[in-house]
Amino acid sequence: MCQNHGVAYIKPGEVEIQEIEYPKLALGDRKCEHGVILKIVSTNICGSDQHMVRGRTTAPAGLVLGHEITGIVIEAGRDVEYIKVGDLVSVPFNIACGRCRNCKVGQTGICLNVNPARPGAAYGYVDMGGWVGGQAEYVMVPYADFNLLKFPDKDQGMAYIKDLTLLSDIFPTGFHGAVMAGVGPGSIVYVAGAGPVGLACAASCHLLGAAVVIVGDMIQERLDQAKSFGCEIIDLTKDTPLEQAIAAIIGVPEVDCFVDCVGFEARGHGSNSGTELPATVLNTAMAVTRAGGAIGIPGLYVTGDPGAKDKAAQEGSLSIRIGLGWAKSHSFYTGQCPVMKYHRALMNAILYDKIKIAKAVNVEVITLQDAPRGYKDFDKGAAKKFVIDPHNMIMN
Amino acid sequence: MCQNHGVAYIKPGEVEIQEIEYPKLALGDRKCEHGVILKIVSTNICGSDQHMVRGRTTAPAGLVLGHEITGIVIEAGRDVEYIKVGDLVSVPFNIACGRCRNCKVGQTGICLNVNPARPGAAYGYVDMGGWVGGQAEYVMVPYADFNLLKFPDKDQGMAYIKDLTLLSDIFPTGFHGAVMAGVGPGSIVYVAGAGPVGLACAASCHLLGAAVVIVGDMIQERLDQAKSFGCEIIDLTKDTPLEQAIAAIIGVPEVDCFVDCVGFEARGHGSNSGTELPATVLNTAMAVTRAGGAIGIPGLYVTGDPGAKDKAAQEGSLSIRIGLGWAKSHSFYTGQCPVMKYHRALMNAILYDKIKIAKAVNVEVITLQDAPRGYKDFDKGAAKKFVIDPHNMIMN
Amino acid sequence: MCQNHGVAYIKPGEVEIQEIEYPKLALGDRKCEHGVILKIVSTNICGSDQHMVRGRTTAPAGLVLGHEITGIVIEAGRDVEYIKVGDLVSVPFNIACGRCRNCKVGQTGICLNVNPARPGAAYGYVDMGGWVGGQAEYVMVPYADFNLLKFPDKDQGMAYIKDLTLLSDIFPTGFHGAVMAGVGPGSIVYVAGAGPVGLACAASCHLLGAAVVIVGDMIQERLDQAKSFGCEIIDLTKDTPLEQAIAAIIGVPEVDCFVDCVGFEARGHGSNSGTELPATVLNTAMAVTRAGGAIGIPGLYVTGDPGAKDKAAQEGSLSIRIGLGWAKSHSFYTGQCPVMKYHRALMNAILYDKIKIAKAVNVEVITLQDAPRGYKDFDKGAAKKFVIDPHNMIMN
Amino acid sequence: MCQNHGVAYIKPGEVEIQEIEYPKLALGDRKCEHGVILKIVSTNICGSDQHMVRGRTTAPAGLVLGHEITGIVIEAGRDVEYIKVGDLVSVPFNIACGRCRNCKVGQTGICLNVNPARPGAAYGYVDMGGWVGGQAEYVMVPYADFNLLKFPDKDQGMAYIKDLTLLSDIFPTGFHGAVMAGVGPGSIVYVAGAGPVGLACAASCHLLGAAVVIVGDMIQERLDQAKSFGCEIIDLTKDTPLEQAIAAIIGVPEVDCFVDCVGFEARGHGSNSGTELPATVLNTAMAVTRAGGAIGIPGLYVTGDPGAKDKAAQEGSLSIRIGLGWAKSHSFYTGQCPVMKYHRALMNAILYDKIKIAKAVNVEVITLQDAPRGYKDFDKGAAKKFVIDPHNMIMN
Repeated sequence: MCQNHGVAYIKPGEVEIQEIEYPKLALGDRKCEHGVILKIVSTNICGSDQHMVRGRTTAPAGLVLGHEITGIVIEAGRDVEYIKVGDLVSVPFNIACGRCRNCKVGQTGICLNVNPARPGAAYGYVDMGGWVGGQAEYVMVPYADFNLLKFPDKDQGMAYIKDLTLLSDIFPTGFHGAVMAGVGPGSIVYVAGAGPVGLACAASCHLLGAAVVIVGDMIQERLDQAKSFGCEIIDLTKDTPLEQAIAAIIGVPEVDCFVDCVGFEARGHGSNSGTELPATVLNTAMAVTRAGGAIGIPGLYVTGDPGAKDKAAQEGSLSIRIGLGWAKSHSFYTGQCPVMKYHRALMNAILYDKIKIAKAVNVEVITLQDAPRGYKDFDKGAAKKFVIDPHNMIMN
Repeated sequence: MCQNHGVAYIKPGEVEIQEIEYPKLALGDRKCEHGVILKIVSTNICGSDQHMVRGRTTAPAGLVLGHEITGIVIEAGRDVEYIKVGDLVSVPFNIACGRCRNCKVGQTGICLNVNPARPGAAYGYVDMGGWVGGQAEYVMVPYADFNLLKFPDKDQGMAYIKDLTLLSDIFPTGFHGAVMAGVGPGSIVYVAGAGPVGLACAASCHLLGAAVVIVGDMIQERLDQAKSFGCEIIDLTKDTPLEQAIAAIIGVPEVDCFVDCVGFEARGHGSNSGTELPATVLNTAMAVTRAGGAIGIPGLYVTGDPGAKDKAAQEGSLSIRIGLGWAKSHSFYTGQCPVMKYHRALMNAILYDKIKIAKAVNVEVITLQDAPRGYKDFDKGAAKKFVIDPHNMIMN
Repeated sequence: MCQNHGVAYIKPGEVEIQEIEYPKLALGDRKCEHGVILKIVSTNICGSDQHMVRGRTTAPAGLVLGHEITGIVIEAGRDVEYIKVGDLVSVPFNIACGRCRNCKVGQTGICLNVNPARPGAAYGYVDMGGWVGGQAEYVMVPYADFNLLKFPDKDQGMAYIKDLTLLSDIFPTGFHGAVMAGVGPGSIVYVAGAGPVGLACAASCHLLGAAVVIVGDMIQERLDQAKSFGCEIIDLTKDTPLEQAIAAIIGVPEVDCFVDCVGFEARGHGSNSGTELPATVLNTAMAVTRAGGAIGIPGLYVTGDPGAKDKAAQEGSLSIRIGLGWAKSHSFYTGQCPVMKYHRALMNAILYDKIKIAKAVNVEVITLQDAPRGYKDFDKGAAKKFVIDPHNMIMN
Repeated sequence: MCQNHGVAYIKPGEVEIQEIEYPKLALGDRKCEHGVILKIVSTNICGSDQHMVRGRTTAPAGLVLGHEITGIVIEAGRDVEYIKVGDLVSVPFNIACGRCRNCKVGQTGICLNVNPARPGAAYGYVDMGGWVGGQAEYVMVPYADFNLLKFPDKDQGMAYIKDLTLLSDIFPTGFHGAVMAGVGPGSIVYVAGAGPVGLACAASCHLLGAAVVIVGDMIQERLDQAKSFGCEIIDLTKDTPLEQAIAAIIGVPEVDCFVDCVGFEARGHGSNSGTELPATVLNTAMAVTRAGGAIGIPGLYVTGDPGAKDKAAQEGSLSIRIGLGWAKSHSFYTGQCPVMKYHRALMNAILYDKIKIAKAVNVEVITLQDAPRGYKDFDKGAAKKFVIDPHNMIMN
């Protein structure tokens, strides 16, 4: 049990499977007797990992990636009281202490005790506290009693593992975007982006009772995926203005709710396709959302983007037509999803067959060795969510 | 009763008292049998009037100004059932039909039936539906049963008139900003701007139970005014970074809640004082608001600003460091205050002596003839709220 | 167009089709120029009508019944501005002025201006303001601009009429009960009663994303109906304690949310079946709802019940084990559903095929002449919702 | 440091200072390495202690009382990371693990892991998990990182200790009642009961911005206390109906919000004074609260009351006129206050001089030896809140 392998970032465009240290109940000098060690059952490749792998961040070579983790507890620190060895658990990607002011009110995405640099931490992510990533065989999860969601039955959990693996990040993240945008029964929603978060968001909108879910993207395969579970779709490579494309579907050029599942690497539409226009989704949001509507922004915007074209964007400043939003009394909700706020309810939705989330985001299970290929395909725009199965527990 | 006079916009920097038409129960061809005619008891000069008078909008010469109105009903249309001739009433500056989808959910700031150009209307304001302004002797108020707030007792109402006159706009507007920013008992708040809305917001924060209310401005007289009712103050002409100035007051460089009571005509701080920097307040908001905090934006941002320095700002696009807000999970609330949501409760707060709002914003009552002087003094930064008394009912 | 017929209450157990007055734009001396006259397309028999017909109220002979109305506008008062002759509209059963303090905040179930006796009014109901009922050919609807929901397309509206007819009462009422009980994605809910409101509530729970919806009743036909659209069911004629029956389904004896769709005519369970026990559902609610849960109470409780067995119940006082609720930090939500709060969103859910509500409650369309038979069958516990079609517009 | 003394319940009407065990980081066999030992600085006598001392519960002789605790950390378990020896801290009376489903959503009053008998626990209280009480010199507090609120500065903390000592229970409890009842700026509130919780609630209503706070009680001294900080008062020994007494103050017979700070030991009003009528406050609430209003119930109702007069009341069943509440669309909020939800904000309100809560509830500091006298005086209705100072740190 002393061996461990994981996916390491090497340089822009390159990741590698390396032998890595077997986890300890510690982060450097910081003891984590409140933590557990997991044998990882599934661990997903995330769009936000791509920001690092594309070289858009200051991630150092050798960083072990992975923050979407599901596993079995194989060792528990002496201060862990309720989580037990043998439990099958989902790990929220936000690391949270459960003891600070923010955690106490459920804002686990901005925990004050897990990252000396700023509020909020995650596994295997640059500037997120230095916690080792979980695209690996084993990983350490601190504050286990607080962070972990135990599945009620292990066999049932394994039977639903392709769905449950999405509870660590993208399902709650997409759902959070929808909730922030005010989606509920009868809503008419536009979801910007049909990557895995966008697809999870669209499926969440259906779960929330939305009447119409319109998804826009520039990749046909992803749009087809959205269509497969009842979404209306808009191909943004076409030159039709978005208002007009929306009106063609619902009769009016505005939606009730808008969710930005793209973030700062946004590109222009129509004849501008391909050009990076980091504020384009936000500006579109104000144009096509009805007065009084809300805009959920789970898509990542960063404080520094060394690869951006202009100086303002390099420090995260974008040209936003806030006057338009103001005239329409819009509200805007940003930030990491606090996964814990939602994961229990969404687990129930999965286990009682209310949603087929793995199908919606098109899960493909791959081996740990195959992870570099997964990164490449995902970067090319495959309409897939890659789930790594490091111990061959899912595929066999 | 056939005579009427009002304050008309003439050209940048100039307003004039003119004889104007006595109001009818109509707006052009549109009949308003649901409306009433008011003898105006008080009508206030607003900071947003200044945008027009400074020539920062496309307001035409001759536009009768004024959207902060309190008066006595002297004639009622046949469809008016509950408001009676003789009632002393407050007029919300938002004109609302009470029958559209938005009004039905309390979003009276974006009524769909009162402005063919866009959701939302106001009296005496450019692009706001063409309704005649109320810095005058008489004015017509449509949908009177829905819009008007009747004061329970007329004598009591006149005794509190300097306070109650603020219910038509700035008291609810400042209060709304505070509510949107999440202000409640124990909150630590920063209010940007000590103009009348900023001062009303600061007083509202106290009413809401805030522990510390910090107000920043560049005019000493306004800061003194804020200090007079228990606010902490920061002089922004000094070069101290705001984080540091805040830390000097509360021990940490961040507040729980931030309210932008400045809007798009914002100026730089410290050695940049005087330079127009329209995004500076919003960017400051993200810097000094704690992670998870909310930012209320009652200050006006516009879709078009012909007088702005650069092309982007001319169409209302500002360079906003949204990445910082995202990293801190901020939320942002924009738009006109829906006055009706708050005016009854705030009337109670006034009539039961829970707040001295006229004193907080330093009301000065002037005659209608004196309005041009009021505009000038206000533009120079007087720490005063000018209330016009067109019938000499307050001063005598 | 001068003829009109309607369903009149005669005496306990008896209703009759009578020729009734053709509606005027007035209620006695009260002019209603804000009203419209509808040609009724559909009008449903409601469980709360049964309270009157069973003789459990002080309804006078000759009262024209009916508060669930959908129709076409054939005449509009001079003060109606936005609703037009020819519109196909849904009428909320709550009559509301749109101008009082309660209406302005969306509490249309307790309007202050439509019933001199107490807040709140309805069509064709004892002590509810004297407004004429709508189980008829024609009816007058006051405050039409405020009250009515216009369907976007008349042909589409007629195509969905069996579903849309439920927007006037039971669909929003059941939905409201679910919302009050905190139902959302992943919830585990118990719905007490499988009459039309209970079934509408259960279907609403599914629309809201509930993971498990358990419905309890004593009539097998109604339970079968609940089962037909994915509910779990519990037959309350059996002697199994409810906790145990719930545990058999979900593994634990408590639910997250509880909705009482029965009200004061509740009966005992198991060997007490048949005995009237008016507090039994409320006491059960506290027993089987988890600590911290909420209890929605759309089922009617009355202030006076002359037919009740004991003196306390006759004045609406029931023996409630409030100490148990207190120990579990329960919250309780009572009252009429404010239909307007929900009908637009639920219309969208119907028109975009997100819910098959007519099928869930088992709509049966009958002629006006057949209404007395509908009342009788419904009283016997038929698992049907009877929809009267007074002009043969649906059946042909 | 091995000596400890505390207040023990002996028999109905009698408490005694006894030598008790010095606390360990354990509860019987249950290890509490997450706990700390406090040197108690202040510990208050609570009205709910009186239920035990009056013999209205099954509390065993020898039970060490006390759940309102403030102290200095003198020993910390190995799992305690953020709370440090030397910290001056407030202890919420609810004991909570910070790791269960309920704690994670802030419902610390119904923690699932601290009481095998039912959700929720407290120090020194019958049926509340067996945790030793804190009317003593030393006490053990489990899950210290989660439960404790550290005061920012120890000297400042001691300077405000008479106010801060109220953060462990009655200030948040009274505040919670007000919040649940919907109290906010401009509200008109009735607070039933002017014991310490009632007075804390009334002061909280003022902090929340209420326009009028009416307090009813039968003890003149308590009413005088309420009057001293700006409340309106109603003497319930008089025979005036409450509606009429309220109308005499505000002009109408109904309030917006109602808070029941009495609970199950309620007595009749007027000529019924003295007779125990456990449902009288709840029934009054429905009578005098306006339609649409909310009723907060922080006053304790129990599941078993062996001392009650009738059989129903002995098991906690009361005759409640729920039909009246239903007709008025009331909502009802019960249960223990989750102190942690409020204590930080209320601490700020104290430390920044926004509220004088000790003065409002009339704190009297007594020695530990004097506790039996405090119990007796409090039982007689003294308008005082007794704060025990076991180490003479406050008085000297």
